[in-house]
Amino acid sequence: MYQADVIVTLKPVVNDPQGSTIKSALHALGFTAVEDVRAGKLLRLTLDTDDRAEAAAMTESMARQLLANSVIEDFKISLVALEAPARSRRA
Amino acid sequence: MYQADVIVTLKPVVNDPQGSTIKSALHALGFTAVEDVRAGKLLRLTLDTDDRAEAAAMTESMARQLLANSVIEDFKISLVALEAPARSRRA
Repeated sequence: MYQADVIVTLKPVVNDPQGSTIKSALHALGFTAVEDVRAGKLLRLTLDTDDRAEAAAMTESMARQLLANSVIEDFKISLVALEAPARSRRA
Repeated sequence: MYQADVIVTLKPVVNDPQGSTIKSALHALGFTAVEDVRAGKLLRLTLDTDDRAEAAAMTESMARQLLANSVIEDFKISLVALEAPARSRRA
C-alpha cells in the first residue's frame, strides 16, 4: 500500500483570489508580516499496490488526466509506503 | 524570509464528499487501485521574518485563528528558509 500526496498549486503567473483574500484577513488580524499567500490543494490517495514505481506512474497519470489542470496548475507528488492496512488500530 | 506551508486536512472521522467524488472519477477512468482519496488544502505563506522560531509561532497562531477549523480539521506546518527575495529570477 502506498500513500500518494498530490499537491496542486496554481502556476505563479495565475491570479489567486483565494490567497489574496486570506492574506487580507491575516493582515486584518494583525499578522502584517505575511507578504504573500497562495492557496493550493492536497489530494491524498491510498493506492493498493506495493510497487513504488507503479504507484508513482499511476499517480502521475491521474494527476495529468484528472487531478490538476495543466493549463493553470502545477503538481508535485510524494509517496510514502504504508504498512499493513491499519484497520484495527489508530493511525 | 520564510515560506510556511500549512496543510489543512479533514479529521479522519469527518466525511469527505470531495474526496469520494474524486475517487469515483478515478475509478471511472480505470484507476481501480485507488482505495481512498481525501482532499485537503495547502496554504503557502511568505513571511517577512528571518527568525525561524517567530515564523513557526506566527504560523501556528494563524492556523489556529483563521486557516483551519479545529472542530473538523487538522493542520501541519512546514517551514523553509528563503534566500533573498527572488524578484528578478525564476524560482
